[in-house]
Amino acid sequence: MADKKLVEAITSMEEDFAQWYTDVVKKAELLDYTSVKGCMVFKPAGYAIWELIQSQMDAEFKKTGVENVYLPMFIPESLLQKEKDHVEGFAPEVAWVTHGGLNPLQERMCVRPTSETLFCDFYKNEIQSYRDLPKVYNQWCSVVRWEKETRPFLRSREFLWQEGHTAHATAEDAEARTIQMLNVYADFCENVLAIPVVKGRKTDKEKFAGAEATYTIESLMHDGKALQSGTSHNFGDGFAKAFGIQYTDKENKLQYVHQTSWGTTTRLIGAIIMVHGDNSGLVLPPKVAPTQVIIIPIQQHKEGVLDKAFALKERLSNFRVKVDDSDKSPGWKFSECEMRGIPVRVEIGPKDIEAGKCVLVRRDTREKIECKLEDLETEVAALLDKIQVEMLERARAHRDAHTYVAKNMEQFEEIFATKSGFVKAMWCGEQACEDTIKEKLAVTSRCMPFEQEDIAPTCVCCGKPAKKMVYWGRAY
Amino acid sequence: MADKKLVEAITSMEEDFAQWYTDVVKKAELLDYTSVKGCMVFKPAGYAIWELIQSQMDAEFKKTGVENVYLPMFIPESLLQKEKDHVEGFAPEVAWVTHGGLNPLQERMCVRPTSETLFCDFYKNEIQSYRDLPKVYNQWCSVVRWEKETRPFLRSREFLWQEGHTAHATAEDAEARTIQMLNVYADFCENVLAIPVVKGRKTDKEKFAGAEATYTIESLMHDGKALQSGTSHNFGDGFAKAFGIQYTDKENKLQYVHQTSWGTTTRLIGAIIMVHGDNSGLVLPPKVAPTQVIIIPIQQHKEGVLDKAFALKERLSNFRVKVDDSDKSPGWKFSECEMRGIPVRVEIGPKDIEAGKCVLVRRDTREKIECKLEDLETEVAALLDKIQVEMLERARAHRDAHTYVAKNMEQFEEIFATKSGFVKAMWCGEQACEDTIKEKLAVTSRCMPFEQEDIAPTCVCCGKPAKKMVYWGRAY
Repeated sequence: MADKKLVEAITSMEEDFAQWYTDVVKKAELLDYTSVKGCMVFKPAGYAIWELIQSQMDAEFKKTGVENVYLPMFIPESLLQKEKDHVEGFAPEVAWVTHGGLNPLQERMCVRPTSETLFCDFYKNEIQSYRDLPKVYNQWCSVVRWEKETRPFLRSREFLWQEGHTAHATAEDAEARTIQMLNVYADFCENVLAIPVVKGRKTDKEKFAGAEATYTIESLMHDGKALQSGTSHNFGDGFAKAFGIQYTDKENKLQYVHQTSWGTTTRLIGAIIMVHGDNSGLVLPPKVAPTQVIIIPIQQHKEGVLDKAFALKERLSNFRVKVDDSDKSPGWKFSECEMRGIPVRVEIGPKDIEAGKCVLVRRDTREKIECKLEDLETEVAALLDKIQVEMLERARAHRDAHTYVAKNMEQFEEIFATKSGFVKAMWCGEQACEDTIKEKLAVTSRCMPFEQEDIAPTCVCCGKPAKKMVYWGRAY
Repeated sequence: MADKKLVEAITSMEEDFAQWYTDVVKKAELLDYTSVKGCMVFKPAGYAIWELIQSQMDAEFKKTGVENVYLPMFIPESLLQKEKDHVEGFAPEVAWVTHGGLNPLQERMCVRPTSETLFCDFYKNEIQSYRDLPKVYNQWCSVVRWEKETRPFLRSREFLWQEGHTAHATAEDAEARTIQMLNVYADFCENVLAIPVVKGRKTDKEKFAGAEATYTIESLMHDGKALQSGTSHNFGDGFAKAFGIQYTDKENKLQYVHQTSWGTTTRLIGAIIMVHGDNSGLVLPPKVAPTQVIIIPIQQHKEGVLDKAFALKERLSNFRVKVDDSDKSPGWKFSECEMRGIPVRVEIGPKDIEAGKCVLVRRDTREKIECKLEDLETEVAALLDKIQVEMLERARAHRDAHTYVAKNMEQFEEIFATKSGFVKAMWCGEQACEDTIKEKLAVTSRCMPFEQEDIAPTCVCCGKPAKKMVYWGRAY
């Protein structure tokens, strides 16, 4: 009864996907609204996922030579205005600080929506000679964008992220770093979050304000909508010229640097929820599960059961493991750890102890596996690995099953009238067609994938010769 | 010549301590000024120290049951005003956001100077029953205080810190947590930063805005000035009453919670510099040294030298180790790694290789130790441990040698006329005497230490019966 109540509190995703999402966020105690409009609280269960993302992604960054720094959260208005496209893109959505203490500021400052301008201002002094290059810096921080509509993890006025900002001697070095970081993101999504991604380049219409080229990883949610999960920008020397960031090369000539930036945010947690979750709640990939294994004693009042549960915990101390010895019923505990997405549940009761075994239950498939107690460590290790791998496989199968091909506008319209997913279609390269498609189908170009296919000779929209195959979709 | 120039760039601390400090911060590339007034850039070498502080302190927090969360950076003005003492303490020094995008806000918000009010607003909804207690949450973030005078690491308009905020069922639980966290800080300073501290309670005059009691750890810098290095506050039920944070106890009666908060900041890096540094630059305790061992090849152009250097690096991979294979001279490299405070330098040249040995040089004492190559790992491990221990011992000896006793006002005045350090003196408990002492001697009460001594029967200032022994000092 009690556990039924807990589960009933989630709307099913088939009934109302948006409500299901909000319910999971709330019931798994990841995030909550605050009295600060558009800003959220990361509760322990939500923040712990971010900490696991952060530590593992940071380790990958550092393998490629990234160094962490921290720059101010404020940007003076004059600094924000130095790069024309950039200020146009961001000025309408920043929060302005106008007073410090009791006094008005001489110049107002915005809270960083992103830190290109601050890094440029910093690099201008840091970089003098080719010996100072490359600079490959990153910071973990929060940024602010004054969004009107907000949604947990996906869009909020303040959000947590990392932003890498690099400076290089040559255009080639900058492009190589842009692609390198996109690959770090893609590998991270697949290997750690068990989320397959499509890698590609954004069209000019969709690229970052001030970038020469924006690359993206796009993932597909359970409802068939796309989520831009990370971006990597090549700025060329545009910012360098706007900010005067020059170095003397080996021939003692003044050159402009070439720059990149790349970022991922807490929306990755939204992706985890919407790619892996089900109608019982969250399903966490083992590598980002704050608790990987939960031990639930059955008939815990009976002599020896709790002791045994804690002894098993001790044996599993290489994993993130907990015992639920609260006075709730086992059924309630089962529902609760399902809601929270804990990958493996270990059930241990008097009969199990007598028989020298326990039961392992997978969160993702609900499969029950009998396990000899002597094999516990190895079985759990193998099971966590297996879950991690199979979650990615299932997500990839879902993504592939919801990726369609449209050779002409009729097919294109029909797909989005009845289905939801990625649609691959050819494009002439003109923004007019992109606009038309957006208007007619309410979809946007997600990316021009690196893996191009020759679906048709002509643009799906205008019929002129096609230049690129594009992924289209409805997006968060 | 080249290395001499690098060293000469630091003012000696005997000549001008403040300038020495600034020089070290700059030359060790820890921090830099920005065009955002009063805000600094943490450069890689500075931020890496903070990361090491953060990861090790966070691990200590988690051992005591602390969970990390993240709350918004903005506080609506009405929320800040709910606790009378608190708003009086902070309102004059906050940054105000008045516009979101192109529109004025209905209510202005400040950027958090500290987050008591946000945590209270959060706890008000989170806490209903005694089962919800205690809440032991912490966040790592940056805060903003609109300081007029700023100084690298010690005082800036934005700074990085952690702030713990807890809620408890009883006054006893809150007091126990307050003291527990003060002890975590004190142990951390001694064991990790090699900085001895005095633990004690602040006088009412010096306590935190809104607190019932503030506890502090105070450390002594090389110039004899004190640095408040961490504080832990017991709020009683004051905030709970202002915000209406109540729970139903086991007898189903409504009770107010009792709260604490506790924080440490990047000023700990300032303490490291001023406790351990010398006229050659930074001296880092091994536990927070981003590079613990630097290998400097001598005559690196000779065959086999660089290979050997990298082979040694491989063998030392349990430590944070680097090889300096740049084209600078060995002398320049020596000066540079001294400036950066790297605890152990390994020198290896052709003759060393032939003799099967290398030279280890301690940064703190400059002692040179011959080391058989076969013993390298164990020797380096032992040496790093030894340096860590001896740095604490030296800092404690310095602190003790600069801690004085004043039994009366004449002694008190004489000490501060000629010396700099902590002065222990008796106090009647009246703020009037505290004010008089501050006015006459330009010193403040640092704390009423837990370890009280019976120095004299009467107050050093007014001659009335003494209640407490107090540590006094000039402070950063």
